[in-house]
Amino acid sequence: MALIVMKFGGTSVANVERIKNVARHVKREIDGGNKVAVVVSAMSGATNQLVAWVREASLLHDAREYDAIVASGEQVTAGLLAICLQAIGVGARSWQGWQIPVLADNAHGSARIKGIDGTKLIERLNSGEVAVVTGFQGIEPERQRIATFGRGGSDTSAVALAIALKADICDIYTDVDGIYTTDPRIVPKAQRMAKVSYEEMLEMASLGSKVLQTRSVELAMVHTLRTRVLSSFAAPESMKPTTPDTWGETGTIVCSEEEIVEQQVVSGIACAKGEAKVTLLKIEDKPGVAASVFGPLADANVNVDMIVQNLSSDGRHTDMTFTVDETELARALDVLKGVQKQIGYFDIKSSADVVKVSVIGVGMRSHAGVAAMMFKALAAKGINILAITTSEIKISVLIDAVYAELAVRTLHTLYGLDKT
Amino acid sequence: MALIVMKFGGTSVANVERIKNVARHVKREIDGGNKVAVVVSAMSGATNQLVAWVREASLLHDAREYDAIVASGEQVTAGLLAICLQAIGVGARSWQGWQIPVLADNAHGSARIKGIDGTKLIERLNSGEVAVVTGFQGIEPERQRIATFGRGGSDTSAVALAIALKADICDIYTDVDGIYTTDPRIVPKAQRMAKVSYEEMLEMASLGSKVLQTRSVELAMVHTLRTRVLSSFAAPESMKPTTPDTWGETGTIVCSEEEIVEQQVVSGIACAKGEAKVTLLKIEDKPGVAASVFGPLADANVNVDMIVQNLSSDGRHTDMTFTVDETELARALDVLKGVQKQIGYFDIKSSADVVKVSVIGVGMRSHAGVAAMMFKALAAKGINILAITTSEIKISVLIDAVYAELAVRTLHTLYGLDKT
Repeated sequence: MALIVMKFGGTSVANVERIKNVARHVKREIDGGNKVAVVVSAMSGATNQLVAWVREASLLHDAREYDAIVASGEQVTAGLLAICLQAIGVGARSWQGWQIPVLADNAHGSARIKGIDGTKLIERLNSGEVAVVTGFQGIEPERQRIATFGRGGSDTSAVALAIALKADICDIYTDVDGIYTTDPRIVPKAQRMAKVSYEEMLEMASLGSKVLQTRSVELAMVHTLRTRVLSSFAAPESMKPTTPDTWGETGTIVCSEEEIVEQQVVSGIACAKGEAKVTLLKIEDKPGVAASVFGPLADANVNVDMIVQNLSSDGRHTDMTFTVDETELARALDVLKGVQKQIGYFDIKSSADVVKVSVIGVGMRSHAGVAAMMFKALAAKGINILAITTSEIKISVLIDAVYAELAVRTLHTLYGLDKT
Repeated sequence: MALIVMKFGGTSVANVERIKNVARHVKREIDGGNKVAVVVSAMSGATNQLVAWVREASLLHDAREYDAIVASGEQVTAGLLAICLQAIGVGARSWQGWQIPVLADNAHGSARIKGIDGTKLIERLNSGEVAVVTGFQGIEPERQRIATFGRGGSDTSAVALAIALKADICDIYTDVDGIYTTDPRIVPKAQRMAKVSYEEMLEMASLGSKVLQTRSVELAMVHTLRTRVLSSFAAPESMKPTTPDTWGETGTIVCSEEEIVEQQVVSGIACAKGEAKVTLLKIEDKPGVAASVFGPLADANVNVDMIVQNLSSDGRHTDMTFTVDETELARALDVLKGVQKQIGYFDIKSSADVVKVSVIGVGMRSHAGVAAMMFKALAAKGINILAITTSEIKISVLIDAVYAELAVRTLHTLYGLDKT
């Protein structure tokens, strides 16, 4: 018998039919003798409708009222799931953040969890009742106002609840059946990983994998909570109840490095689209020039990712290339054109036809030559590298978008990740 | 300066554009120096969607979960109105039932208000902030669960809040600009009443007027709270701020009889459609026969309204006629056919082509002959009366539906209610 937290996202509870399916997943675990707390998101689309109403009411809106409005989405799902569970003979009760309580700080709209009092829930779980908990929200104790955790915050709710309840595992049910070595739509030979380390998962999340929210992985890592990603669309009865003996059989477990026995050098390949490249031509090569470029961009809330500055050819001028999110490109160009005189560049060029391809693996720490191998393989396919960034467990390159699939497939084979 | 509670129903807050209009009504009162608490319903249609989801989840559903789900509708409106108020420079904060708290009993789905702690709100109102309160809901204190007050419960929320805050008046904004002597669509000469007594309003509500919920009128009557019905669709700036000197100028005030100086004998004419007539032919005329008919109907939750039993012609048999709500006719017939043997009737006939026309007025108490005048006038127009019921301040007759408009117009003129 285990105490498990099961989390279901928006697409898994998009309508009542799917909520009934979720109820059967939960029933399987209860029938298997487990104690279960479920964390749910709003029905897919519900939050967007609520946010649209808020924007129509006023573009400048009070964050506390925003939170009170958007939190209603999860409340509806939690109540509906409790009813669906009761209808198939499973005792259940819904819990809103303030009822538990889930305590949050007062950074409304992107609040952080300060603590969860699990006392009431544990009592109910011990009596065999399922606790259905609204994700994404808590209560700010001083003013007794609802506070939400920002988009994707339900993952964090689930992990924090699992920690508070001292759960054996936090199962995140989603629309994929695990974490893959790369996007299976690009590489059919991509494999589902049985395990992946917290650190690798964090890199993948920051490189565009939307399976788990970054903060939830950080929280799980700090508390060494086993977190598993699995599919809510699989037939509930086709899966076995969760037990410590079998929980490696389904989905992907995100866990500490030490738990992963056969560590690969490279665990996965990520491909982030939606990047845009900006090049400033013939910029004056003098101290403080980087600040004059990136200061105004930071002021305009443009996030800059990769930065490459070429060596000066004449000792006076250089070219500078960097990447921004595609959606922020227009804003970045506006800002830079406005400060052309101050910076002193000759011309500006930009392109959105670029992608960032990354290889990730904690094994890199103890293996030299991973980067060299990567550059050589890409060169052999005629793929030009526009920029490079690295971290201890990741190497990213910026390339022309047309080579994206070729690069990912090449690297997937190169590091021995193809399914056999 | 007055302390006022303003209540806006579902059609008045049906979309963000209308919520902005509501905000302007509130701003007018704040600019006029009043302290304002606003009670809002869910956006029109929102509650129906939530109820449909609950039914889809399970026809037999836990009332506590039902409440948690449907209460979300008002939470959204309250937050949106607070944002719209802030956007036009009016300080505002939304309050959910549990935040105030509005204490309710545990009859989930049709809970009653046990008390409202106005302390926190009064503090805010005194500082000039508008309190936007979710109608229709409170918190059951023992289990800390949300409890709702049933359809139309927001009127009751508003009246109860006005009592708790010791408000000077409770203004119910709706889609009509007051209470009329009869339906103006039937009688163009119908007049808006400046004042109507609680007792008359209660009779009108029970006769199908949907302007105010019965329970809210009862509550206002017990506490002698002035309640006013007025239109939310009038341009907010075309109305004057509410003051004790001018609040008789707009809408209709529901108040105690003593406040109404020029009391009419008959104040209004009501016409209730949706009635159905059932006649049991040749029923045995013996003690206990009424119980044998109405017992099974009560068991099947069929509400019976008017009952007429003719005198027995042969000393052994009689005919019995009664009315039920049209939507319950099929059920009533089913029940009665099932117990034909036990009751011992020859045949059963039914018709939905009937209406109940009523004249209402507290003045009847001190004036004889009101009923005789009514019957004579209807007979003069050739209108046959199928059944009669009376109370101290009301006479109702059941007639064929084709005569509905003629009867209402005739009586409206008869009792001197036509606009001059």
